[in-house]
Amino acid sequence: MLTLDKIYHAGYVLKNVIRKTDIIPAPKINPEANIFLKTENLQITGSFKVRGSYYRISQLSDEEKSHGVIACSAGNHAQGVALAAARSGIKSVICLPDSAPISKVEATRSYGAEICLVEGVYDDAYAEALRLRDEKGYTFIHPFDDEDVIAGQGTIGLELIEQLPEMDAVIVPIGGGGLISGVAFAIKKLNPKIKVYGVQAAGAPSMYNSVKGGKIERLESVSTIADGIAVKEPGVNTFEYCSEYVDEIVTVTDDEISAAILALIEQQKLISEGAGATAVAAAMFNKVPVKGKNVVCLVSGGNIDVTILSRVIKRGLLMSGRSYSLIVELIDKPGQLKDVSAIIADLGGNVISVHHERANEGSAVNGCYLRIVLETRNFEHIETIRRVLTERGFKISDN
Amino acid sequence: MLTLDKIYHAGYVLKNVIRKTDIIPAPKINPEANIFLKTENLQITGSFKVRGSYYRISQLSDEEKSHGVIACSAGNHAQGVALAAARSGIKSVICLPDSAPISKVEATRSYGAEICLVEGVYDDAYAEALRLRDEKGYTFIHPFDDEDVIAGQGTIGLELIEQLPEMDAVIVPIGGGGLISGVAFAIKKLNPKIKVYGVQAAGAPSMYNSVKGGKIERLESVSTIADGIAVKEPGVNTFEYCSEYVDEIVTVTDDEISAAILALIEQQKLISEGAGATAVAAAMFNKVPVKGKNVVCLVSGGNIDVTILSRVIKRGLLMSGRSYSLIVELIDKPGQLKDVSAIIADLGGNVISVHHERANEGSAVNGCYLRIVLETRNFEHIETIRRVLTERGFKISDN
Repeated sequence: MLTLDKIYHAGYVLKNVIRKTDIIPAPKINPEANIFLKTENLQITGSFKVRGSYYRISQLSDEEKSHGVIACSAGNHAQGVALAAARSGIKSVICLPDSAPISKVEATRSYGAEICLVEGVYDDAYAEALRLRDEKGYTFIHPFDDEDVIAGQGTIGLELIEQLPEMDAVIVPIGGGGLISGVAFAIKKLNPKIKVYGVQAAGAPSMYNSVKGGKIERLESVSTIADGIAVKEPGVNTFEYCSEYVDEIVTVTDDEISAAILALIEQQKLISEGAGATAVAAAMFNKVPVKGKNVVCLVSGGNIDVTILSRVIKRGLLMSGRSYSLIVELIDKPGQLKDVSAIIADLGGNVISVHHERANEGSAVNGCYLRIVLETRNFEHIETIRRVLTERGFKISDN
Repeated sequence: MLTLDKIYHAGYVLKNVIRKTDIIPAPKINPEANIFLKTENLQITGSFKVRGSYYRISQLSDEEKSHGVIACSAGNHAQGVALAAARSGIKSVICLPDSAPISKVEATRSYGAEICLVEGVYDDAYAEALRLRDEKGYTFIHPFDDEDVIAGQGTIGLELIEQLPEMDAVIVPIGGGGLISGVAFAIKKLNPKIKVYGVQAAGAPSMYNSVKGGKIERLESVSTIADGIAVKEPGVNTFEYCSEYVDEIVTVTDDEISAAILALIEQQKLISEGAGATAVAAAMFNKVPVKGKNVVCLVSGGNIDVTILSRVIKRGLLMSGRSYSLIVELIDKPGQLKDVSAIIADLGGNVISVHHERANEGSAVNGCYLRIVLETRNFEHIETIRRVLTERGFKISDN
């Protein structure tokens, strides 16, 4: 059974293994509140997961340790288990579906795990992990529904109370529910006046639905940019802890998560993965009552693929008017490209790319198009560029 | 005159104003060394500059404070002065060239400064700032060549010695030299065995040239991605301190800086501006002796424009084989686009964009082109895609 003692014990065991990550003020995330970030994206392995894995492994018997551990994950849990096992001097095997991104596979391998690529999807890798456990005597390390794992994650709750005693509320991402179960348990046992809010991706609201419905519900499918919390079904234990200790669970959309990722980059100089930014999104978009309060957003991890990051930034630039893509219809006569370029340059637009194309059926036979991508200052700047081009006789449309 | 006492006093004054930023291990930056990051990118205002500005302002007389302060900067110094003045309850005016990016202007204004946009370039804004100082009685806050400013930056040296007593060396970015002067002075007075290395951008090596030549030299022009340290001429004081207390100054190229920015994002989940990543670049590319040593890289700031960040990431993806842009020449007959798409999909390439264009003079009259941008895994993956397309009879070239 989970006890405060167990969480304190986990804190003691983890003391020289994990980083006590900093709490950083984030004054611009929501100007009506005092927002702070608990930066578990700056934890070793780039996520909080190593806390639970390491503590779980530390509690194995010598006999169990001699056989090693196995886990199934393509993400933060895999890296947490791999590092925790290596630091504990024991063997780890990680099963992943063979469709897992190379970068995640390599990261996990680099922490010292043996990689077992399984044909198929997550469920196939999971089945193979259980088969190997039975065949080889490995201990299976569950990503969330385990009391040692929950106790390890709960050490964040102890740190929060020590680092920011005046905290009124904490917002915690929920996937399977291991993180929030530990954090909520620790905080509510020590100071029940502190609110604990959970946040899920709108595309994977398994705990949200389950707690609302009063019983565990399984989602048929999940779809969100926050892949770290795209979990179809809560755990038996985590469902109980969430039902008892969490004040409210809310959801955030992928657009809100993207805006939070971009805000963390621009305002806080921090990289967050989708899951890690959900608590910030909840505070930014007032999904929970934060006005006038000291609120900690738990930034749970930073392991975002840089190609996805690149897309999130691109989308964020478009959505804030700092990038603009337009089509200019030209009469096919000399000098037109020069004229358009001159107008844009005079207005301070910075051309990123130009594609010049001949007419298709939709336009005049002697016509052609310019597809232009610009760096712009804001929506007003875009409007000025549109207006002046139109005034000078160019027919333009958004791309 | 600068003294250790003055730096301790600055530390006392700054105690409740600035953040004592964390030191974070960065094990993958250079596996042969123990690299740590001093994360001044996570400082309030996103850079160390607020330390020097605030301490400088704290030392003004009441008479001087009643008139307010003025500075000339489009970057971190502007934001540091603006915030420091606001926190001290005094007026600040910041002169900027009217070509300064809107985002920087708005950030400075948001910290409470009065903005004075001056037609022309930096030198024009500087001249106007001096004119206003004389006319209105403002105190001019120099960005680096000032002993109070240097003492403020030197507080980082005190923190380093306290946070990582076993440090063997620290690598510090140099623009005008204020930061390294303070840090080197503090460290060498306390423990002269600790090495202090300076790093400049290869496109703006003013202090590097000056110290090497034994006298202050002015560069005609500077050009680097690290705009925060693109300074044409060292200060009189900072030149002396660098000559006396800095063990060695090295330079890093823009490509090395870009690689360091990307490494900080992927490995450390931290956003650094160009200047802020120079010390990391120096450690990554063995510009100074780091092997087997405990080395702190001072990440001086994180205020990078997100459009530039986006370009750095894009370039980093290209350079590491995770993005690939190619042109496929097609015979203009039905089904070709489908065939190419199928081949790429089967090989696990992820299509980002396709442009389909009719022939130009360089190709067969009935030909056309596909310009394709792909997400790829690595260079081997790119080679496989190239090989299979060629084997199936498609003529391809890099874009």
